[in-house]
Amino acid sequence: LGWVALLVARLVLAAPGWAQPRKPSGKSGPARYGMVIEIKPDRIDYYKKLHAQPWPSVTKKLTEVNIRNFSIFLKELEPGRWYLFGYYEYVGRDLDADWKKMLADPETKRWLKETDPCQTPIPTRKAGEWWAMMEPIFYLR
Amino acid sequence: LGWVALLVARLVLAAPGWAQPRKPSGKSGPARYGMVIEIKPDRIDYYKKLHAQPWPSVTKKLTEVNIRNFSIFLKELEPGRWYLFGYYEYVGRDLDADWKKMLADPETKRWLKETDPCQTPIPTRKAGEWWAMMEPIFYLR
Repeated sequence: LGWVALLVARLVLAAPGWAQPRKPSGKSGPARYGMVIEIKPDRIDYYKKLHAQPWPSVTKKLTEVNIRNFSIFLKELEPGRWYLFGYYEYVGRDLDADWKKMLADPETKRWLKETDPCQTPIPTRKAGEWWAMMEPIFYLR
Repeated sequence: LGWVALLVARLVLAAPGWAQPRKPSGKSGPARYGMVIEIKPDRIDYYKKLHAQPWPSVTKKLTEVNIRNFSIFLKELEPGRWYLFGYYEYVGRDLDADWKKMLADPETKRWLKETDPCQTPIPTRKAGEWWAMMEPIFYLR
């Protein structure tokens, strides 16, 4: 329902959040991405539990769509305000196409129905984003 | 002066920020670290300029102390509140010792005299931290 709309919006909007290529300026190596989203304090335990034993169907899909070296970190930035930071590398040739493939996957949709309600997108995100992409300003191989 | 005190404090306090090992639970691969700090809006341009052409003496030192794949990302999380997110991997065997070596380096000290005034450590950081380490909650190789 709301989730279907959300997923459709993600697909339709030309710039689905973490599908935007962000290359560190003039440096070598695979494309690197950093992204951020707020997490609701009362959902942290559940979110951590999900990610401590992520569904093999979903991690397999992430690998299939050429995502590598994907980490998520958690931190309380101010009292009561918790954020998630994602870092990943992309080794494919068409991140938009791969991202659409990921979102079309039924298991991924089911996973997002669990994780999305834990999160609150930041107000300064770009149109069409859920996780907000960050600007890379330094890279050292 | 203030910076010397800061550097000494970093060395003396047993837990200097990004020197704390944080392994993703039960996953393979090198040790990964995520860290965060606020940046003063009026210092963003200067900070970006510094990191667009980082001093070779400092990047060389980072490599010497076994830091790899180091990225820094920038994002405004709320209107007027900007944050830096750092991600790096450590391939050595003694991060504490390597970190001390890094901080003892005159060029690094000179670099930090430029970058530290741009930053505001978050109030929820741990004792002894400048950049606040984040908790890893997910990792996919």
